[in-house]
Amino acid sequence: MNKETHYTVIGAGHGGKAMAAHLALMGFPVTLYNRTPEHVAVIKARGGIELKSYNGGPYGFGDLALVTSDIGAALEQAEVIMVVVPSTGHADIAHSVAPHLRDGQIVLLNPGRTGGALEFAHVLSECDCQADVTVAEAETLIYASRSEGPAQARIFRIKDAVPLAALPATRTPRVLEALSTAFPLFIDGTSVLHTSLNNMGAIFHPALTLLNAGRIESTGGEFQFYIDGVTPSVARILEALDRERVTVAASLGIRARTGVEWLRMAYDARGANLYEAIHNQPGYRGIKAPPTLNHRYITEDVPMSLVPIAALGQRYGVQVWGMDSIIRQACIVHQTDYWRRGRTLDKLGIMQLSVGEIMRYAMEGRNNKQ
Amino acid sequence: MNKETHYTVIGAGHGGKAMAAHLALMGFPVTLYNRTPEHVAVIKARGGIELKSYNGGPYGFGDLALVTSDIGAALEQAEVIMVVVPSTGHADIAHSVAPHLRDGQIVLLNPGRTGGALEFAHVLSECDCQADVTVAEAETLIYASRSEGPAQARIFRIKDAVPLAALPATRTPRVLEALSTAFPLFIDGTSVLHTSLNNMGAIFHPALTLLNAGRIESTGGEFQFYIDGVTPSVARILEALDRERVTVAASLGIRARTGVEWLRMAYDARGANLYEAIHNQPGYRGIKAPPTLNHRYITEDVPMSLVPIAALGQRYGVQVWGMDSIIRQACIVHQTDYWRRGRTLDKLGIMQLSVGEIMRYAMEGRNNKQ
Repeated sequence: MNKETHYTVIGAGHGGKAMAAHLALMGFPVTLYNRTPEHVAVIKARGGIELKSYNGGPYGFGDLALVTSDIGAALEQAEVIMVVVPSTGHADIAHSVAPHLRDGQIVLLNPGRTGGALEFAHVLSECDCQADVTVAEAETLIYASRSEGPAQARIFRIKDAVPLAALPATRTPRVLEALSTAFPLFIDGTSVLHTSLNNMGAIFHPALTLLNAGRIESTGGEFQFYIDGVTPSVARILEALDRERVTVAASLGIRARTGVEWLRMAYDARGANLYEAIHNQPGYRGIKAPPTLNHRYITEDVPMSLVPIAALGQRYGVQVWGMDSIIRQACIVHQTDYWRRGRTLDKLGIMQLSVGEIMRYAMEGRNNKQ
Repeated sequence: MNKETHYTVIGAGHGGKAMAAHLALMGFPVTLYNRTPEHVAVIKARGGIELKSYNGGPYGFGDLALVTSDIGAALEQAEVIMVVVPSTGHADIAHSVAPHLRDGQIVLLNPGRTGGALEFAHVLSECDCQADVTVAEAETLIYASRSEGPAQARIFRIKDAVPLAALPATRTPRVLEALSTAFPLFIDGTSVLHTSLNNMGAIFHPALTLLNAGRIESTGGEFQFYIDGVTPSVARILEALDRERVTVAASLGIRARTGVEWLRMAYDARGANLYEAIHNQPGYRGIKAPPTLNHRYITEDVPMSLVPIAALGQRYGVQVWGMDSIIRQACIVHQTDYWRRGRTLDKLGIMQLSVGEIMRYAMEGRNNKQ
């Protein structure tokens, strides 16, 4: 049992605080980094985080080895670096850590959304980072959790199985091995293209938000997001987006899970189509809509999830009309260019690659590293 | 006073019944045509339509000269042919009337939506109709009205001023003159390109329906369509669509009214933007949302209003991303191709025309008629 593995958790939000406390309670030495010192001042003063959770789940005061806003200090002891920030921050984190990384360190994005590991590795390469680090991404965050105070966190649920993949995939076993004591729930996600293209939030979040835009803004989100928001017509649009995602994956030679398959796998929710399967998922009952359209369901999931999938489609000849229509409306609503801000193929460092070259890069790595 | 003008009203729906009864009560000889005899059987048996309306408005039993489902008989006496059917039916009507039209007859589409007169004239030409008829379109229906029984109609409001235009515009005065006794409210709409591009339903109806799709379907439309449905984000999308429409018009050399200008003109509703102006229009209070997405706000306004405006934009170099995103989602929701079903430029008979040629056609007519 390698209880000596030193973890550094980057990000002290809902997920980061829960993970840092959870790891500390399991007995690992943990450093918590947050860019803004004020956000972790109370944690630093108390020396840790108070964790609560569900019945039988982890709880107690998790003592942290170090709480810092100095990225160099944060990485000094780190063997595994858990990045738990919105994916819109991944590129910035990569820029910050690049000068401090050391051979053998593992960076895991929790989660990567779509193209997280590719973007992270591309930024490291652009920063001329020479350290032999392993960048990996998880398909989703392992927790449903919430921050309940400056030094408090609560875990509602820990998922049973979460796929992760390293870039290249030949290094996935190494990551799974390093994490196995703390998080045996991680499973092999095949490749970062698989984890990226199985990003279901890309399909559900932006479309569901836009097709309920009037209701969200006029009620402040006071309705059940999935139960009331997913009506037959809305579900038809989700189905169309989902079909586009699976087709983009197929164009890369990847068999992605359909939304219906994913709902069965993740929640044992069944149905002949997305409408039925979503309404057969009891966990969706009671989940409120976002209170405003200025929410990560658009601000994060459009540029970091939908844009990279649509960009892959455009590059490899798959019509992504539905995705494009959602992206455009999000651009109008937020008066910004989510295509420009988003993870297009140049930002993922795969602009010039053929399908075969992308797959080889994801599976085996670049032949000539540079 | 030419109270002898013989009107034929085509279509016995909400608008057609009100118009036929209103004209009859004004003393004009009126023929009412409906394709399906069952729909007008009661009117035929009673010999007319019972009209009710607002205080001081027209009311009483309007005796009809003829009620028929024989299009030849319907047109025999007609001097003015008022087409009062959904615009999705205009092409079919044109096919039916083509063999029966005579020199000097006037056909007015109430309303044309976008490209109604162009499409109608194109179908007549394709049917090799040699009669010298004048085809015109109104910008909106002059009534807010409802059918209240098989031979009953109610008018809630008659608009103050409704622009109309003939194709070519040189014939607009002739149409205004023929209609002046019955409907002095009609005013010169400049050209059919103007009436077509000032179609505000194209902007408001489909987007408002889609961006409230979840709420419409989960409540059956039990909310205020404009008051609850037009929130700041929804209004931003309406603004973007409106800007596209005005830009498409500008590419043809036409200064179209903006939505804000239209709300001020039509309702004296003011505001710095569409959100404010819509919420300052008391007439929108109490108007419920459509009960389902299977509604003319999509089934008619997408193919007959949005598609032709977007098609003009694509042809003359204007980006219509917002319109395109709405059209695509409508296609997905109704699992049909609204581009194929809609009024594209080939259906309007203007596919091969330059901007100058389109304007000349609308203003002066074709040099070589065929």
